[in-house]
Formats: sequence, structure tokens, C-alpha cells
Amino acid sequence: MTKHVYLFGGGKADGNEKMKNLLGGKGANLAEMAGHPDLRLPVPAGFTITTEVCVHYFSNKGRYPEGLKEQVLKGLAYIERVMNHKFGDPGNPLLVSVRSGARKSMPGMMETVLNVGLNERTAEGIIKATGNPRFVYDAYRRLIQMYSDVVMEKAEGLEPAEGMGIRQQLERELDRMKKARGVKQDTELTAGDLKELIRVYKAKVKEVLGKDFPDDPLEQLWGGIRAVFQSWNGKRAVSYRRIEGIPDEWGTAVTVQAMVFGNMGEDSGTGVAFTRNPATGEDVFYGEWLPNAQGEDVVAGIRTPYPINEAGKTEHTAGLPSLERQFAVIYRELDAIQKRLEKHYRDMLDLEFTIEKGKLWMLQCRVGKRNGPAAVRMAVEMVRQKLVSPEEAVVRVTPSQLDELLHPVIDPAKEKEAKILVKGLPAGPGGAVGQVVLTAKDAVEWTQAGKTVILVREETNPEDVEGMRAAQGILTARGGMTSHAALVARGWGKCCIVGAGDIHVEVDKRQITVKGTVVREGDWITLNGSKGTVYAQALPLIKAAGENPNFVAMMGLCDKVKRLGVRTNADTPQDSAKAREFGAEGIGLFRFEHMFYGEGADRPLFLLRRMIASNTEAERRKALEELAPFMKDDVKKTMKVMDGLPVTFRFLDPPLHEFVPNGAEERRRLAADLGISDEEFNKRADALHESNPMMGHRGVRLGISYPEMTEVQARAILEAAAELISEGVDARPELMIPVTSHVAEIEHQKKLIEKVYGQVVDKFRLPKGKPALVIGTMIEIPRACITADKFAVPCEFFSFGTNDLTQMGFGFSRDDIGGFLPKYLEKGILPVDPFQSIDQEGIGELIRMGISKGRAVKPNLKIGICGEHGGEPESVKFCHRVGMSYVSCSPYRVPLAKLAAAQEAVADLAKKAAGPAPKKAAGTGAKAAARKPAARKPVKAAAKKPAVKKPVKKAVAKKPPVKAKKPAKKR
Amino acid sequence: MTKHVYLFGGGKADGNEKMKNLLGGKGANLAEMAGHPDLRLPVPAGFTITTEVCVHYFSNKGRYPEGLKEQVLKGLAYIERVMNHKFGDPGNPLLVSVRSGARKSMPGMMETVLNVGLNERTAEGIIKATGNPRFVYDAYRRLIQMYSDVVMEKAEGLEPAEGMGIRQQLERELDRMKKARGVKQDTELTAGDLKELIRVYKAKVKEVLGKDFPDDPLEQLWGGIRAVFQSWNGKRAVSYRRIEGIPDEWGTAVTVQAMVFGNMGEDSGTGVAFTRNPATGEDVFYGEWLPNAQGEDVVAGIRTPYPINEAGKTEHTAGLPSLERQFAVIYRELDAIQKRLEKHYRDMLDLEFTIEKGKLWMLQCRVGKRNGPAAVRMAVEMVRQKLVSPEEAVVRVTPSQLDELLHPVIDPAKEKEAKILVKGLPAGPGGAVGQVVLTAKDAVEWTQAGKTVILVREETNPEDVEGMRAAQGILTARGGMTSHAALVARGWGKCCIVGAGDIHVEVDKRQITVKGTVVREGDWITLNGSKGTVYAQALPLIKAAGENPNFVAMMGLCDKVKRLGVRTNADTPQDSAKAREFGAEGIGLFRFEHMFYGEGADRPLFLLRRMIASNTEAERRKALEELAPFMKDDVKKTMKVMDGLPVTFRFLDPPLHEFVPNGAEERRRLAADLGISDEEFNKRADALHESNPMMGHRGVRLGISYPEMTEVQARAILEAAAELISEGVDARPELMIPVTSHVAEIEHQKKLIEKVYGQVVDKFRLPKGKPALVIGTMIEIPRACITADKFAVPCEFFSFGTNDLTQMGFGFSRDDIGGFLPKYLEKGILPVDPFQSIDQEGIGELIRMGISKGRAVKPNLKIGICGEHGGEPESVKFCHRVGMSYVSCSPYRVPLAKLAAAQEAVADLAKKAAGPAPKKAAGTGAKAAARKPAARKPVKAAAKKPAVKKPVKKAVAKKPPVKAKKPAKKR
Repeated sequence: MTKHVYLFGGGKADGNEKMKNLLGGKGANLAEMAGHPDLRLPVPAGFTITTEVCVHYFSNKGRYPEGLKEQVLKGLAYIERVMNHKFGDPGNPLLVSVRSGARKSMPGMMETVLNVGLNERTAEGIIKATGNPRFVYDAYRRLIQMYSDVVMEKAEGLEPAEGMGIRQQLERELDRMKKARGVKQDTELTAGDLKELIRVYKAKVKEVLGKDFPDDPLEQLWGGIRAVFQSWNGKRAVSYRRIEGIPDEWGTAVTVQAMVFGNMGEDSGTGVAFTRNPATGEDVFYGEWLPNAQGEDVVAGIRTPYPINEAGKTEHTAGLPSLERQFAVIYRELDAIQKRLEKHYRDMLDLEFTIEKGKLWMLQCRVGKRNGPAAVRMAVEMVRQKLVSPEEAVVRVTPSQLDELLHPVIDPAKEKEAKILVKGLPAGPGGAVGQVVLTAKDAVEWTQAGKTVILVREETNPEDVEGMRAAQGILTARGGMTSHAALVARGWGKCCIVGAGDIHVEVDKRQITVKGTVVREGDWITLNGSKGTVYAQALPLIKAAGENPNFVAMMGLCDKVKRLGVRTNADTPQDSAKAREFGAEGIGLFRFEHMFYGEGADRPLFLLRRMIASNTEAERRKALEELAPFMKDDVKKTMKVMDGLPVTFRFLDPPLHEFVPNGAEERRRLAADLGISDEEFNKRADALHESNPMMGHRGVRLGISYPEMTEVQARAILEAAAELISEGVDARPELMIPVTSHVAEIEHQKKLIEKVYGQVVDKFRLPKGKPALVIGTMIEIPRACITADKFAVPCEFFSFGTNDLTQMGFGFSRDDIGGFLPKYLEKGILPVDPFQSIDQEGIGELIRMGISKGRAVKPNLKIGICGEHGGEPESVKFCHRVGMSYVSCSPYRVPLAKLAAAQEAVADLAKKAAGPAPKKAAGTGAKAAARKPAARKPVKAAAKKPAVKKPVKKAVAKKPPVKAKKPAKKR
Repeated sequence: MTKHVYLFGGGKADGNEKMKNLLGGKGANLAEMAGHPDLRLPVPAGFTITTEVCVHYFSNKGRYPEGLKEQVLKGLAYIERVMNHKFGDPGNPLLVSVRSGARKSMPGMMETVLNVGLNERTAEGIIKATGNPRFVYDAYRRLIQMYSDVVMEKAEGLEPAEGMGIRQQLERELDRMKKARGVKQDTELTAGDLKELIRVYKAKVKEVLGKDFPDDPLEQLWGGIRAVFQSWNGKRAVSYRRIEGIPDEWGTAVTVQAMVFGNMGEDSGTGVAFTRNPATGEDVFYGEWLPNAQGEDVVAGIRTPYPINEAGKTEHTAGLPSLERQFAVIYRELDAIQKRLEKHYRDMLDLEFTIEKGKLWMLQCRVGKRNGPAAVRMAVEMVRQKLVSPEEAVVRVTPSQLDELLHPVIDPAKEKEAKILVKGLPAGPGGAVGQVVLTAKDAVEWTQAGKTVILVREETNPEDVEGMRAAQGILTARGGMTSHAALVARGWGKCCIVGAGDIHVEVDKRQITVKGTVVREGDWITLNGSKGTVYAQALPLIKAAGENPNFVAMMGLCDKVKRLGVRTNADTPQDSAKAREFGAEGIGLFRFEHMFYGEGADRPLFLLRRMIASNTEAERRKALEELAPFMKDDVKKTMKVMDGLPVTFRFLDPPLHEFVPNGAEERRRLAADLGISDEEFNKRADALHESNPMMGHRGVRLGISYPEMTEVQARAILEAAAELISEGVDARPELMIPVTSHVAEIEHQKKLIEKVYGQVVDKFRLPKGKPALVIGTMIEIPRACITADKFAVPCEFFSFGTNDLTQMGFGFSRDDIGGFLPKYLEKGILPVDPFQSIDQEGIGELIRMGISKGRAVKPNLKIGICGEHGGEPESVKFCHRVGMSYVSCSPYRVPLAKLAAAQEAVADLAKKAAGPAPKKAAGTGAKAAARKPAARKPVKAAAKKPAVKKPVKKAVAKKPPVKAKKPAKKR
């Protein structure tokens, strides 16, 4: 006979923590606590009906499998025996709870029935035993309310009449009773009131549902079990599963467990605790409790809970009694238990306990939630404590937890209370507070005057960069996640919100309006750049510890585990230095055009503009020659900072008209400098206008139209490198050609560069191959992916530009997605903004194609990514899987990328451990990518988190640092 | 011993017409004429040295293969024997010509040496035989001039001193002589003068080249042979081969042939003839001749040649003597020969003949060039005459020849003399003459006033459509081949030139300027829309016969042969009717938005604009409901015209802001109609502005943002179809969703359409499945190709939108390519504008991917193309090869598409005939496309014309209509 029911309690258990698939998370953990030889904790006895029963139930029109009935009755008898109470026995009644429990936590999505076993007679029995009629009647009326709703109505599929379910109808009776008694709180009702209410409730149930409320405890029990099963297919649960990608076939387990009560008097109590401080990560037992209370009293926030121990006291709770003092013996017992549990589970745990008449019961244990700094600290310290391996540690921290350490954030408590003014796209993380300014000039001036400002613009352009740098944060009404503002801000790690479409910026009126609300220049606002929320008030920020030693240690763990290289996108010596601090292993993207933004860029920007407005090669060459020293200087300083690491220089990329000044005065200056009329200048500037500049005259197309541009840039880079090498610096430039769609473009440019290289080599006469000539290309146009086999011939490396690849691959202009993408996400047409996280199905397929075609021709082809995706964890993992050599991202995202790379390396180990079949696909991403079915698999698997997380345990089981000898002992 | 030398003449030949690879075109045809049992024509004897010798020569440092010398001498002896003259014999001297001849004609690219064998002594011998010293000395001085240049200088690789070659130096001597004699023409020099000149020449040769001019005829012969071989690698020949894609390895053959002279007196003459009239195609022997003349006299245009027969006389040549009259016997002989030749070759031939002292010699025969109308007439008539099969006939006409029949063109003679004002892109074929107007309004008004006008605009937009229709032709300064002007014009078959960047349109000054030249409003200009040339004068047009019976017959042949469907892009009942006349098999693209252009579109355009400016669903629905009747009306009329054929309706596609009016008055009207302020209206209009509208809020994105738009369009189509079916019309609508990038978009729209379909079905209660619901999508975004397997599930058909696919695949904005594409084509980075002809390597690979993925899921998936490429012959052939079901193009391109489809079907037959290996790849394009290497092959092969043309002969050899029994007789 199949085993449907697993018992636990009384120092033993049929199941264990590994049996989550069969017993659900809750059932498995209860079994572990109750039955594992190392633990055998005081857990109220109970049994778990398996998820297989649920599956059987739904595939057999609600019928239970053979033998279930007998096994449940046996389980009930076991509980009675262990707990020494009897179900339905008025003299010594046993009450039980009936709870759901799926393989993966689905908080609040399914039903629970408590106090099962209560009826008129058993109620009297408990009153006799406890002398507390109010407590008993309250429990009883709660049972009726819960049961009639969950079991008698919902589980039967009844549609509530006039939209009013039985629960609401009973609530109304409760309200009537309170009104009649002239009281406001439930707690003010007397035992007698409650007894009367029970009568009313039962009559109402009969009236509305046409059935008596069942008095038979066994009927109640079976009703509860059925209701929990039914709730697996309830609306809420089904839609939650859709969102989380949980398969319908998993089913839920049902756990029936003896009730224990923390509200049976002053010798009772209840609490929740963490084996370490979840807010700081400190390795100190931490928790809250309340005497004579139920679990919900602690968490509901109605009563202020007490600190569990003296160490946990704060200035606010200093005067409250701790469990450590109040119940010293029980506290010591609990403390010992939590120590054993953490050692056993090798992770910080969240515990629930109840003290019933002086006896400690453990009700729940699960891995505890924690914030970012705590997660990092715990992971690092647990490695030091040899509790976990580095591989385990790196998957204990989520990217967003790590991110919390990198930016100041709004105090979450205060933010919760604040009213959102407007929402936009979260383009630069962290929080920022400042006074509204509407021009870049004001941003600079106000900041110089000692003020802190938020720059609010319709959208930003290169002329705003000074002001953007000066501001605490940036807010724009237009633009997407990869708009100018977003790119610049993210590069600096600056708080930024873009595309807040409801904002109307009225520079002339010195104000912005948001759906009628006016915010004036100088008003304070606060941005949450991680969420995209804007508040029309100054909220306090919390500084995060960017340089804290735990963070550094965490990065060390990541470096130990990861295999993917992590470079940075940096365009200045300053950014490069910062990125190197963060552990960047080179520069994957140095944008020449960004040289013309920011401080001290006046002169080069002017020269660039003059070059752009040139009409002849001679004019252009003149401007370029004057520009060259500036270029060389920046390039040289950057390579010096990155001594010994590769620096990838991308040739000028953006449409030239982006650099044409709008201001009349600047235009006049340029016209004068070029010796042409204002009219002629304007004509030239207007001629640069394009209908779709993203697909216009940019990137390599400029280098082909104006070969002299390529030459000057190449010379700047190669001469700078040669000079540095002469000075003893290990300069490693890589030259990258952007926006290529046909291999002939590269061949054309390569010839120009090789000519310059020859001249530089002749001039400097350094040892052969110094500097090395490394030429590669961006792969950012679909055609380049499709013909990557051709591209691989002249190229030393590929760097995927996934911003543009996503633009062209989807036909989505990143500047214009505000018009439709929100609807797409809202309607679920796209699961996620593809500019934020690589669309693995479509754009990812292009990338796989590009890699496999490229490597087919040149097996050792160096392949990276340098779009903003390079810092987004899911995208980084994708890059690892498809076999890239490195990712490159803005300095502030380097740590995130490292973490994601480490986590995916661990996932690889897990796949390898899982057996030889997936090993192949996972091991050599590039090769696997060539065969489509194989390549698809890992991606899909990874999209669902469990696939990544679950096998990790298996992998690390190979070398558990503390429990090395334990697996053998386990059953 | 390898055979290096192939003899011909005297009624036999070693080679034949099939041996072009070995003997070159000229050698093979001479052998055929001389030796084929059906022909055995009077050909001056000669021999051909094979192309293999040329290959050996170049791969062995200029050494000849073993045995060549002996074989040449034997060949020479053969000529002597047949012609009864002796090489170098002063008593009875033989002169020979040495000519090149490659597998494929390379006109004028290689060298020729005539009169080889002349020296002082043989000259005297000929003088004695002919009594014509002037003729002999002239031939001798020509030999020296030609030989010293070609053999002694060029073939030796000598660099001319001070840029002046020996030929120029000798020309100078000739000029001196003429000056000294006081004459102007060469012909005025006496025999004595020429004899003196020969002396001067020889001295000059010795002086400049340091060598004597060779007197030894054999030395002359070997020098000539070497010079011809050398010229294969001459600069001109090499660069010609690069352009034409002729492999260097082919090499040239060398033909040495006895000289015959048409200028030996009044009993001599020479001429060129065609077996049919090459200008009209009429089946009448046609040609020109001159008595006592050399071949070059006929073609050089110095003397007016005489008509060959009475039938060929025109009013200009009525008074001239015909060969038919002058040399009746010889004419009859020639006429019989031409008849035999045409029957033998089964094509119209171009012949050269010479009469030497009353004897007819055939010097050359080759397939004759012809113009478009002639090509079509000949193909059609030869099928009727059972000379060729339909398969042969369709490959006899090139697409551009067919195109000549469809549009009036500028009189070529007049165009040759005209000065080009400016060049642009040839966007709409044919010629157009008119007076310049600069606004659409003027175009309409001037035309109404009876004038013919050319509309010249910076670029056009939907507001210009009225004027565009009124004008004879359209000329724009900006935009590419798929700009608004180009698309609209091509749809109408109207002459159009776009992107003539040198034009500055100054509407305010009522003039345009082109590099300083001013053309005023009202000035006459002429456009050649097939070449993109503009003339600042009125040139005469020639009307082509669009409805001529040969054209209709030609289309019938194409239909018989082709397998690919050909539909049309048409948006109005009028265009649909025209396309049906042209033989369109349905509509592949009906653009809803084009309904709002053109005559009578005022009201719907206004309503469309109102809809666009709507801010709420209610406003939008109101405008849409008012629009619906207009939509339904147009849709219904179109389906009625296409009774029994499918009509594919594409939902509204372009960015909405394209429809926002620029005029203040129209804006005010709209604002008033919407009941909003002008300011509010402008705000809404400006909000529609996008940075890159091509990748913005368009296509299906509109349908997702505003589902009511999809619903109204779907209802218009389905109700119109239902009404027609009720009326007995076989309406076959197909609903096409544009700009999709993710299958979820289609699923979303499909649900909306299915809802409407259900309502229509309920309303009309027609037989089940009437109208059928056929929903498909454009595949025009790279991601759609990549995930086509997903798309195939909900779609009944795919229609590739290769304009957008090329835009996104290359990252080329079609409106902006003017900035860089000309440079790309100029530098050879791209071989052809990918918006004109599908880029088969890159975009083609995306298409192959889309087809193979789609058909993998749905093997019978209907797949078409509806971009402008659908009418471009090379692209149509590509579509055939990759296994598409149909192409769709503008009405005027339907014939071209049919022709291309037929030609590619013939190529298929050829591939099948060629053997089982290629058969597989060619037979099932879709399947073959799935395997990359196989898929690539046919494309590359097809890019080179010979691969397509050559096998055709093999294929048709299977069923030669006339020569059915001949192959067996052939050797």
C-alpha cells in the first residue's frame, strides 16, 4: 500500500527535510525538526498527507486514493497518543490545525483551518481544563467563521450571493453584536457575548449555505483536508503559480497537527526568532515574544512585542521584559535549539515557538529572510566559521541584496508612509534627495552655492552633463532605460529616474506639473532610483557601507568561484580607477564620444563640433588634428590606470547631430571659427538631421565616410600605448569598431588602422608586438550575428552590444518605448523589459548564433558583452551559459556581475553533479549553442529559479565544510 | 600529347559551339560554322589555341606547354593548304589575324593583331596580286602601329616614357606627314606617302623601343599570340573581370585566322546582319553593308552603310543600293546561310561577313543583342514557330527588357546628347517630361490648367499625394529607394527620382538650385526614372506598347513555366483592377493607411487624424466608428475586383505622427472637431513625435495600445467579405498583423479578431467557414524570423516584409541611407543597395531561418513576401529558391516578377537535369534552407549569371522543339 501519510512528533518522524517535493516545505521541516537524530525537538505531533494525494485527488475527480482514510485515522491516533489528548473527547479534547504546504512557499495563497475538533461539547471540556471560557468561545467562533468560508463555501465552489460571501455575512453579525454591546474591539466582547455569537453564526450558516455547521470533529477534519486540497486550484493560487512558474502538477501537501496555545495564561507565550540578526547579519540570537499571546499577536503589530534576550534590546525596548529574564530556563532551552538548528541547516533560520503552560513547542523553522548587508555578512562569516563553502556562500546573496550595499537608500520605514508623486523607470539605483532645478546650469550653480539638487528635465542631452554630475539625482519625463540620462547616470552609479511620463516640465514657468500637482523650482523631492518612485518631500537616506570589509570579502568569494571575466565600461581615468577598486578586470568599453562630456570637456567638445560641422576633408582633418592631443591624453591616462589589464576603445559611435549645439551663441562661435556664415552653419547642422538616427549615419559608417576620423583615433590610442610601454606601463589597448553590419566594413577599417599601426611601430621602435594590435568589433546589428562566421576572420574579438541588438532585433527604439512598452509589460506580452534583461529567447538566439558561428571559424575568439545588460544578473548568467569570455558593465555594477557570474558557475557545478547528460550542454556553452535544442535547454531551465537553486545543494553536498561526515549518518 | 590547337575551315573543324570553355566564344562559333554537318559555311580557315594554354602560360612564368609550337605550325600549314596561300611567301602570301576569345565575351578588353605576315617582301607580293599598293601599304603601316604598341611595348610590360606610348608617337609621325603633305584625312595620303611613313615608323620603333620591327612573319605570329595571352592580365581586362565576376582561371583562347579583305575593289564588300530585326523583333533578315570596305567602316559610323535588302529600306535609305540588288547571287547565298544558322542556333544571330573579290566569307556569328520589345516578340514568335520551348523563351528576355514595354521612355538618341543636370536614385521607371512645380497644390492646379508638370520636393509626405498623382513625374532631394515618394510612385508605375542630394529646393524663391545652376518654376525638365538622371530640358519620349499582344503572350509563357505565385500590392479598387489585368494572382498587401491618401480621401483622412489626436478610448472609438464605413467600402470594392482571389489586408502600420497635419488651419479644424483648444491639440500632436519612428509606436503596437483600432479594421474586412459572399462574390480576405516581434502580440490580436469574427458570423449566418478566418503576420522584425517556430503556431501565413527586415537587419534607416550608402556602393563595401535587391547573405539567412523554423512547425504554412523586393528579379528568384509560396509587388512590377519566377523555375529544371546532388537542394527550398551549407550554395551559384544561364541549355536540350532528332546526329 502506498504511504500517503507521514507522521512526526514524539521524538521521531517518517519524513525529513529532503522530502519537500512529497511533504511540502512545511511538512518536511517539521519532520526534520521532530525526527532527525541530531534534533528531535519538541514539535507538536502531527502528520502530513503527501502532495501525491493532491495530484491523485485532481486527476480523479476529487476522489482520494485507496487507504488514505485508514492512514489518516492512524495518524490521528498517533497524535492522540503522543499529545495525550483525544480528538472529539469532551473530557480531554485534542484540537488540530489543517494547513497547506507546497514544495515551494506560496505565502497566503492557500487555505488553513485552525481549531478543528471544537464543538459544543469539546469546547466545554477545554473550558473545564483551562478555566478560560472566553478563550475557548473565541476560538470556536473563529473556527465557524473560517470553516464556513473555506470549507463549506469556497471548497464547494459556491458563488457568494450578491457578491457577499459567508465570511462577510458573519463579519456583519460580529459588527452588529459589537454595536449592540456598544463596544469597538472584538476583545471587548465577553465570553457570554461570544457564546451568543456562536449561536447566531450557526443559524446564519444554516440560512445562507443551507447546511448545519458540522459538529462532528471527524467531519470537520475531512472538510478541512478537502478544503486545503481544493485551494490548490483556487484563483489566487493558480495565478500565483502562473507568475512564479510553479507547475500545476506539483500539488500541495496537507499537514494536520496538534494545536498548542500560547494564550493559556501567564505561563504561556509565543514568539518568532532568527538564529542571527536578519537586519545586520550579526551572529547573535535575535527575536521577539509576547507572554499569554497567540502567534498572530506578535506579528500583527497591534501589541509591541518584547525582545527575546538582553542582547537584542534597543533604546526603545530597554524597558520591556525579555524571555531570557522572564523564562530563563525556557530561553536556555530555546537558545540551545536554535544553535543546533542553524548548525544543522547551515543557514540563518526563522523560527516560531509557543510556550503552553510552561512547555516549549517548536512550530516552524525555515530559512530566514534578510536584508542586503545582513546577507553579505552572514555569507562571509559562515564561510569563515566553516559552516558553508564559498560556492554555497555566493548563492546565499541575491544581486539586489548586494546592490543595497552600494548606494544610499531611502529609509524604508519613512518611504512606506510617503505618498508617491509619480512613477518612472528605475534607471540609476539608490535614493537621492534634493531641491528641484530645471536646467543643467542651475544644477551647477545651486550646487556650487552649497545646495543639494535634483535635476528635472524633459530629457537630457550631452549639454546637460555638467548639471547631471552636479545633481544628487536626475529625473526625466521622457526616455527609456537606456536613454542618455539613464546611461550617464548608471555609469556614475547615480540615482536616476527616467520616462516619468506624467511629468510636464515647464522651464519657463520654473515648475513641473504632475497631473495637476505643481512642484516648483526649489521644492524638495526624493527619488527612489531602484524602484522608480518620486516623492514630493525630503525623505531621510540611509548610507550603505560600500567599502565595508564584508563586501570586500564577498567579492573575494565571487572571484574564487566565478569563471566569467568581468570588465567595466569606463570612459575616464577616474571611472577606471573606481572600477578597478570594485574589482574590474579590464575595460570592456571606453567610448570616445564620452570624452566630450563632463568637466574640462569644453575645448574638445568645441573641436568635435567643429569637426562635425566641417564640409571638406581638409576642414575635418584640421579639427581632428587639434582634437588628437586631447584624445591621446585621456586614452593614455586611462590605460595607465588599467596597467596590465586590457582596455577596449570603441571608435566614435553616435549620430553626429547629437553633438550639434542647439544654442545660437555656440553656433555663432563655431561658424566664426570655421570662417563660415551663421546661415551656412545652420544649413550644415540641419543637414545632419536624420529621420531615424539610431539607424543612420553612425559608428563604422562615419569611419567609412571619413577615414581620417578612424585614423586619428587609432593614432591617439596606439601612440598613447607606445608611449606608456616606453615608460614601463603594461598598456593593452584593444580597438573596437562599432555598428558593423558587413565584414567588408571591418576589412576597410582594419586596413586604415594597420597603416597607422605601421607608422607608430616605425616611430617608437619598441620590442616586436609592442603594443600588440588587437582589432575587434561590436556585434550589435542583427546582420552581424547572422554573418558572424565572416566577421570572425578579420576580428580578434567580438563584443556584443545588446542595447542596439535589442533595438534592431525587436524593432524597438529605446527612446520611444515609453509609448508602448508599459502596456506590453502590463498585459504580459513581454515578461520583462528587454532593455533591462536580455530577451533570451529571441535576442539570445541571435547571440548564440553569433558566438557559435564566430567560434566555428576561430575557436578561441574572445567574446564579451558591453551593453548595459552586462551588469544585469540574469543577463550575466546567460552570458556565462552561452560561453562568453567576459561581461563589461558600469563600475557600480561590477560587483553585481561578479556575483551573478559566481552564482552561475555554481549552477554549472550543480549541473555537472546532476549527471553526464546536462554536463555536456552546460560545460561548453559555445559548442552547445551551435546545436539548437541543447542550447535552448539551459536557458529555459535557468529562467525558473528552482532549477538554479535546487541543484546547488547537491553540488555543495560534495564538500560540506562542517558536516563532512554527516551524509553517511543521514537516512 | 594534349591537343592545344583546334583547326577549322575547309568544310570541317576540330571543335564545335559547345566547346566555349576551351575555345572561347569566338573560336567555338567559328568551328561550329565551319565544321558542323548542317552548316559547313565558308569560313576563312584558322585555328584556335585553347584557354588551357593560357592557364598554363600564366602558371608557368610565360612558358608554353610542350607541343604547342609544333601544333601551331601544323595549324598554319592547314590554313595555307585550305586558303591556298603561303605564310611569308612573297609570291602568294598568307596574312592572318590573331584575336582573343574568352568563354564569355569581354568586348574590347583584350588585344587583337591584324595583318600578321606582312613585311617588305610579302607586301610587294600582295601588291602584285591585287594591283592595289595603297591598300597594302596602309595595311602594313597599321600592322606596325598596332604591333609595336600591343606586342613590342604592352606585352613586354614597358612603361611608356613621359606617358607617351609608341602608338602615340607613331600617331604623331602620321600627323606630321599629313601636315607636310597639306592633307587632313588619312585617306588622302598616297601609296608613296604611306611607304615613306612605313620607313619613318620603323625608325621610330627602333629609336623608342630599341629593337627592330620584326620582318619575320613567324616572329610576328608568335609575338601576336603572346600579346593576346598577356592582355588577359592587362589592367582593363582584370578590372572588367572583377566587375563581371569572371574568374581569372578561365583564361582566353587565341584564334589565328586567314585574313580576307572586303576592300579589294568593287567586287568586294563587307557587312553585319541580324537574322531578325533587333529593334522590332520582326522575323525579317536585317543588316547593313558597304562595297569595297572593311568591317570597321560599317560600324564606325563614318560612312552611311547601305541596307542589306529591300525590306530593310527606310525613307532615309530608300535611295541606297542594297546587297540584294547589287550582289543578288551572294545575297541569296547569305540569306540561305542566315536561315540555316538561326534554325541551327535557335536564336536571333548577329553575323559578320566579307565579300572578297566576289566570294562570300562568314567571319563571325553570335547571339544578337536586341531591345526589350524585340526580345519579347522574338521569344513569343519563336515558341509559335516551334523553334524554342516556353522554358527557353522565358530566359531569352531579361527583366529590364520586359520593363521597357511597360513605361514610356526618353528617346535614347536624344538622351545621349543631353547634358545631365543632376543624378538621384531611380525610384520609378520610365521617362517623364514636364514643367517644374514646387508644391503639390501647384501640381494639381497646373495640371487642371492643361499643363504637364514635374513635382519637385525636398521630400514628400502624405499631404503631397494629390500633387504626386497629378504630376508626370516626381523628383525629390531627399529619401531613399523606399521613401514615401518612391513607394507611392512605384505603386502607380510613375516615373520618380529620389534622393538627388545636390538639389536645393527653395520654395519661397520658386526655384531649385543645383550646384549653382538655377531652375525656375515653370522651366521644363526631363526625368529618366530608370537611370535616375535629370535633364534641364524637354526631351522627347517614346511610347512603349504596354498592351501589345506579344507582351500578353509572354506573360502566358511565364505562367506556364513558373511555380511561384505572384500577387500584387494594391490599396484601391483601381490599382487592384490594373494588377489583375497584369495577371496578379491576388493581393499580397492591402495597406489600410494608403486608404487615406489620394482622391476623395479628405473625409477619411480627417477622421483618421481625429482618431490619432484622440486622448481617450471614447474619443478614439467615436472617430473609428465614423471611419468604419469608409474602410468597409474600400475593402469591399477591392475584394469584389479580386473575386475568387485572396486579398491580404494589413492592419494600420505606420507611426501615427506621420498623419498629423503640419498646416495650422487643418490643425485648427481638428481641434475644433475634437472640442479641444489649439494648444491642447498641438500638445497631443507633439506628444506623438518619436526619435526613431521606424522603431516606434507602430504596427501591432498600435493594436495592442488601442485594441479598438484592431476591432474596427477586422470588422470592416469581415463584414465586407460577408456581404460580398451574400451577394455571390467569392471574397477571400486574409488578415495580416504587421511589425510583430513576439508571438504574444499575435495571440493578443488574434483573440480580438476572433471575437469580431464570431459577431460577424452570428450576424450574417452564412454557410460554415464563410468567410474563412485567415490570420497571419508580417515577418519584418529580425526577432520574428528568429522565433518563427513560435509564430507559426497561431499564424496561417507569413508575409516577409523585407523593407523593414533590411532596415533592422542592417540597422539602416531607409530614409537616412543617403548619408552613407552611396559611399558603401562606391567603395564596394556592399555590392548592391540592399533595399533594391535582397541581401541574400545576411537578410536572406534571416528569411531562410524564418521559413525553415515556420515550416518545421507547420509544413504547409503559406509564405510570401510583400516588400518592394517582391518585384525585383534577383529577389524574386531568391524567393523561389527558398521555397516561398508567392511574392507580392506593385502592379507594374507583376510582369517582371512573373518573368523572374519563370526564369528561376527553368533554372530549377536545369539543376535537376544536372544531377541528383543539387536536385535535392533546389527541389525543396524550405527544407534545404534548414541545413545551412546546402542552403547557401544555390544562392551563391545564382549570383553569378552563367550558373543560371548555362544549365538552361542542358535542360532544354531535353526537349528541343525543332531539333528533336538532332542531338543524336551531333558528334
